[in-house]
Amino acid sequence: MTLKYTRRQVLTIIEHPAFTATVVTLVILNAIVLGLETYPAIVASTGAFLSYIDQILLSVFVVELCMRLFAQGWRFFRDPWNLFDASIIIVSLVPAAGAFSVLRALRVLRVLRLISVFPSLRRVIGGIVAALPGIGSIGAILVIIYYVSAVMASQLFGATHPQWFGTLDASLFSLFQIMTLEGWADIARSLAATHAAAIPFIIVFILVATFTVLNLFIGVMLEAMQRVQAEKCSPSPPPTEAKAIGELTTEVAALKEQIEALTWILTRPER
Amino acid sequence: MTLKYTRRQVLTIIEHPAFTATVVTLVILNAIVLGLETYPAIVASTGAFLSYIDQILLSVFVVELCMRLFAQGWRFFRDPWNLFDASIIIVSLVPAAGAFSVLRALRVLRVLRLISVFPSLRRVIGGIVAALPGIGSIGAILVIIYYVSAVMASQLFGATHPQWFGTLDASLFSLFQIMTLEGWADIARSLAATHAAAIPFIIVFILVATFTVLNLFIGVMLEAMQRVQAEKCSPSPPPTEAKAIGELTTEVAALKEQIEALTWILTRPER
Amino acid sequence: MTLKYTRRQVLTIIEHPAFTATVVTLVILNAIVLGLETYPAIVASTGAFLSYIDQILLSVFVVELCMRLFAQGWRFFRDPWNLFDASIIIVSLVPAAGAFSVLRALRVLRVLRLISVFPSLRRVIGGIVAALPGIGSIGAILVIIYYVSAVMASQLFGATHPQWFGTLDASLFSLFQIMTLEGWADIARSLAATHAAAIPFIIVFILVATFTVLNLFIGVMLEAMQRVQAEKCSPSPPPTEAKAIGELTTEVAALKEQIEALTWILTRPER
Amino acid sequence: MTLKYTRRQVLTIIEHPAFTATVVTLVILNAIVLGLETYPAIVASTGAFLSYIDQILLSVFVVELCMRLFAQGWRFFRDPWNLFDASIIIVSLVPAAGAFSVLRALRVLRVLRLISVFPSLRRVIGGIVAALPGIGSIGAILVIIYYVSAVMASQLFGATHPQWFGTLDASLFSLFQIMTLEGWADIARSLAATHAAAIPFIIVFILVATFTVLNLFIGVMLEAMQRVQAEKCSPSPPPTEAKAIGELTTEVAALKEQIEALTWILTRPER
Repeated sequence: MTLKYTRRQVLTIIEHPAFTATVVTLVILNAIVLGLETYPAIVASTGAFLSYIDQILLSVFVVELCMRLFAQGWRFFRDPWNLFDASIIIVSLVPAAGAFSVLRALRVLRVLRLISVFPSLRRVIGGIVAALPGIGSIGAILVIIYYVSAVMASQLFGATHPQWFGTLDASLFSLFQIMTLEGWADIARSLAATHAAAIPFIIVFILVATFTVLNLFIGVMLEAMQRVQAEKCSPSPPPTEAKAIGELTTEVAALKEQIEALTWILTRPER
Repeated sequence: MTLKYTRRQVLTIIEHPAFTATVVTLVILNAIVLGLETYPAIVASTGAFLSYIDQILLSVFVVELCMRLFAQGWRFFRDPWNLFDASIIIVSLVPAAGAFSVLRALRVLRVLRLISVFPSLRRVIGGIVAALPGIGSIGAILVIIYYVSAVMASQLFGATHPQWFGTLDASLFSLFQIMTLEGWADIARSLAATHAAAIPFIIVFILVATFTVLNLFIGVMLEAMQRVQAEKCSPSPPPTEAKAIGELTTEVAALKEQIEALTWILTRPER
Repeated sequence: MTLKYTRRQVLTIIEHPAFTATVVTLVILNAIVLGLETYPAIVASTGAFLSYIDQILLSVFVVELCMRLFAQGWRFFRDPWNLFDASIIIVSLVPAAGAFSVLRALRVLRVLRLISVFPSLRRVIGGIVAALPGIGSIGAILVIIYYVSAVMASQLFGATHPQWFGTLDASLFSLFQIMTLEGWADIARSLAATHAAAIPFIIVFILVATFTVLNLFIGVMLEAMQRVQAEKCSPSPPPTEAKAIGELTTEVAALKEQIEALTWILTRPER
Repeated sequence: MTLKYTRRQVLTIIEHPAFTATVVTLVILNAIVLGLETYPAIVASTGAFLSYIDQILLSVFVVELCMRLFAQGWRFFRDPWNLFDASIIIVSLVPAAGAFSVLRALRVLRVLRLISVFPSLRRVIGGIVAALPGIGSIGAILVIIYYVSAVMASQLFGATHPQWFGTLDASLFSLFQIMTLEGWADIARSLAATHAAAIPFIIVFILVATFTVLNLFIGVMLEAMQRVQAEKCSPSPPPTEAKAIGELTTEVAALKEQIEALTWILTRPER
């Protein structure tokens, strides 16, 4: 009884607007602290203080997470946004012990909690994620074309231009660069000096990849348009006309019965 | 009485098409003068003359603004375009005294009055501004992702590549550059020499940022499409069918009454 | 009579499919000849021959133009595509005399006749041209913003970086380059060394210009979508339902008259 | 009889889900093997083994192709995807004998069979291919503009800048590069030193080409949108109202007959 009561109390607290506002404020404060820590001069002067604030904020977030876990019980794990928040906090706890800069850098992921706190931002992300399956096929085709092109590029140009196409990794990177049209002409001109097939290969790759990416973008756009239309049309327009015609039919049927009665009156034998 | 009369007179003047045409001509003349002032050779030969014309035009614009303020009274401040015009003129007045090139450069903002003078251009800007709230959520997500990535990039690469990621400012600039896909491959290759995580980090950033920007663009497009459809559909199509059904229902009701009367005639006892 | 007859004869010839096919073949042949003339080795060996063919083809096109002018009379000048063809041929005649390479280069514009020959291509160009007024306002705003930014850039950075912003021409070019996001970061970093305002200026310019261009693109797209929908909807769907309701109303009205007649029969005094 | 029976047996095998799953697995395995072969270190250690697996997989694919050819008979050649698979396998057989790296590189095209195996990917490609005729006109215009510009560029700039515009091939490549906005400003600035017409030429080319490509993209998008709408609308919405009106008309007609009968009863002479 006491546990259930405490749970309800905690739930009342964490669902209070002031609680959410406090969390938002602390996340923004944390974002500022982490931003300031990127300036060497500021770290040199007040680094210890900033680090101290960061530790306190992390503790607060851990307490908040535990409160939500306690209040919601197993339901906590059903909401993917809770898992998102939890994994962000857990990742932050690991580097606190270690000294690896990569893990330290992950602390700033905590700022992404700004997305999970606001329902409107959560909805936008939800919409984007919901649109992903719709573009899965065209995405798969892009990946297949990209992989095939990378293996071909390695075999064609790997021997003469190892800096770009020496291994499959290098080819994948170079073709991604060419797909973004960044510096592709320099690579093409350089390859053309030794390979006659280089320019046709790269231009065909650019055309095919660009066209596929365009279709991917159109897919995302059509998904978004259908989502918007579905939201607008979901209650379906009230069929006032159909209703009017239905009532009219009932009326005419009643009329028919009346006339039938009238006919019976006029033609009854005993009259 | 006299004041009210004068006001009405001034209002008649400033609303006259010839007045607007004169203002447009003077703004374009001003644009040409300011354009000519960017050629050192022309400034050397006729700089004083151009500067003199610019001063006269500024005076004319100040007079015009005062006329509109006088004629419209407090209503003047309700139209945001009036505030836009006023701030442009006020900014122009400040540098007239000083010698700062930055403030002098702001004089050319006066040419933006071409937008506020034409109602069709004002409507386009109004439409774009009205669409901004609709993309606020996705814009906020983009800013959060951008900030988080910049802090991470500073912590990961700041020590070894201070020219790009030394401070948060530098990282924000470099990531904006990478988001525009300008020279990103050179940065990525340079970072890759010392950081194994650089290429995955940059490619994930490009994919996430590009996809978010794509969704931002789709949001702008959907807003524009809905605006166009709302303009088309606003009067609602004439409900000719609904009207026809209504008349039919009235007709059938009259029929029913007639038949009822007929039935009464045929079945009345005294017959 | 003879003139009129000859005209009709010529009209019959130029409207014959074989005539059009011949013109298309000759234009393509001309395109190949002009293409071959760009190879110095080919010009050295068979340049005189190619030049001779080009002259013959030009003569044929002049004859064809005269035939169309003769057959169509004044109506010739009403079709803008005829004016397009005529100006292309006239431009070709000028360099035939002179020795200016710029004028010689204009001969290849004749190949654009491939567009005016095919009705389907003419329609596409017609559609694009018809969409231009719809994006006039947003285009005007882009031009104003672009001009204002160029004058500002000249005044701010002209003194220190004359190679990019020395005159208004140079600024217009550099800002166009920045708008295409080509090498903008190098310019921005270079300016930032001497001007604190450079990076905010360029980033604001990129955001505003990109957003305006995006709205321009959306405008083109919406025009195209409305054109497609207008083509589909133009005959308006057959109003079968409205027609059915109309017939029904006539039926019910006839019914009413019958019942009125019946009522009169039953209630006439002499009965 | 035996042949027909065997055919049906083979058809049962190749249409079994497990058979498709095996083919997919083998294609993916082949993709991995071909990927590994791009790493010189791996080729040095286990190259012979990988090459051996590749030979076995190719044999399996040849057998699978023959099975499908045997089972489907002439129908095999009606499905373009079968021809796609067959040509991929045949191309793979050729380099197995030769030593040309270009032909060897084509072996990886076998991985494209992943597209032909999955019906959903095949449909996406089918949709893209079906949309191509719809953009044929605008594509033809783009090609004409591109060719005309390349010939002009060769004649204007070929003499002074042979590295970019020396021949038609070079001009076509350089203009494609300029169309992708990659390094166009460097080319333009370099040309501007000797040709006054260079910058206007290139900027007009960029504007025209970009606008045409934009219209091409819009065409692809509109095709995709119509395809989606056609799929949605194809069964046509159930005409409930039309049905209701039809029933009402039947009802009113019955009413009319009854009243006519009634009138006949009341007005018959013998009454």
